[in-house]
Amino acid sequence: MKGTFIVLEGGEGAGKTAVRKFLAEKLPDAVFTREPGGTPFAEKIRAVMISPEAAEASAETQFALAWAARFDHVRAKIRPALEGGKAVISERFDSATYAYQIHGQEAQHLKPLFFEYKKLLGECVPDLYILLDVLPAEGVRRAKASGKGIDHFEERDLAFHIRVRAGLIEFLKTVPHTIVDANQPLEQVLHEVLALVKQHISS
Amino acid sequence: MKGTFIVLEGGEGAGKTAVRKFLAEKLPDAVFTREPGGTPFAEKIRAVMISPEAAEASAETQFALAWAARFDHVRAKIRPALEGGKAVISERFDSATYAYQIHGQEAQHLKPLFFEYKKLLGECVPDLYILLDVLPAEGVRRAKASGKGIDHFEERDLAFHIRVRAGLIEFLKTVPHTIVDANQPLEQVLHEVLALVKQHISS
Repeated sequence: MKGTFIVLEGGEGAGKTAVRKFLAEKLPDAVFTREPGGTPFAEKIRAVMISPEAAEASAETQFALAWAARFDHVRAKIRPALEGGKAVISERFDSATYAYQIHGQEAQHLKPLFFEYKKLLGECVPDLYILLDVLPAEGVRRAKASGKGIDHFEERDLAFHIRVRAGLIEFLKTVPHTIVDANQPLEQVLHEVLALVKQHISS
Repeated sequence: MKGTFIVLEGGEGAGKTAVRKFLAEKLPDAVFTREPGGTPFAEKIRAVMISPEAAEASAETQFALAWAARFDHVRAKIRPALEGGKAVISERFDSATYAYQIHGQEAQHLKPLFFEYKKLLGECVPDLYILLDVLPAEGVRRAKASGKGIDHFEERDLAFHIRVRAGLIEFLKTVPHTIVDANQPLEQVLHEVLALVKQHISS
């Protein structure tokens, strides 16, 4: 692939959206996107995934929905951008499915399927994952204080968010990554991530 | 499982819905259902799958959506009914995913994932698949003549429907099944299927 593919990852309240918006201002030539969603059809799947009824959905169902949306996202947005030599920066990617469904929702039996799916991404795999690492209790506090509407994942208990963080850290061991301390003041996080992204895009 | 699980399968215009409705009259104690859908959450996924925008969706995306809906259907409807000793009769099941996505949409590379998913069904696997086998050209003619709204699968060309039929027949070789000649007059098909189902439920 000609372009560089970078994923911004992190639990609730890690500052992913703020970082994405800051980067979008500073890097107008890059393509910014997010999961679940990123294409019109994947956004329809996202709406199902975060609907109130989805709170009762099993890990298997959420897992398959996440991959359904991801394949559309890759086919219609990420792959064409990378082929065109663009940098693509996505808030969340396969790392989130590993962390939320396999660890958060405690479905370790989905790991073989996860790696079968990952093979189908072909060359559309991230060059770098940046983990905005925040302590789960602090992240949940920030997410609640933000006043944004919260979805059924954000509402889960602290143990869920601790498992998600453990899942992210386990996942990262298998891919190129950098961990940024997102417990720091936001201003510092923004500049640290910008420097990292610039370095990878130009290299 | 205490109950018996039977799947009615077939391409477009094979008469699945007519058969299901006839059986439902004759067998009031059985649970009748259909895929994609069968639970409130799976019906939300179905709506996405058959929406006009889904005509452009890749086999990977449709495949994952079908499994997402199926896990909800199994968890919330099929498994409880079978555990309660009920007979469950579903219009379509995993056989449809194998036929439509892997064969119709020509995605043979999804076969390993298909069998990984199938393992996760555990004991919730059909005791019998009944294929209402109609010649694709005749089935498409009937579907168009029926005046029902048609979805983006029904609109595809005859080659697609011929591949779907080949996929169904290939799939059936791996499971307990009976093939009913659905080119016969509907009345005869209805009685043939009723006899088959009664025999399996009581055995």
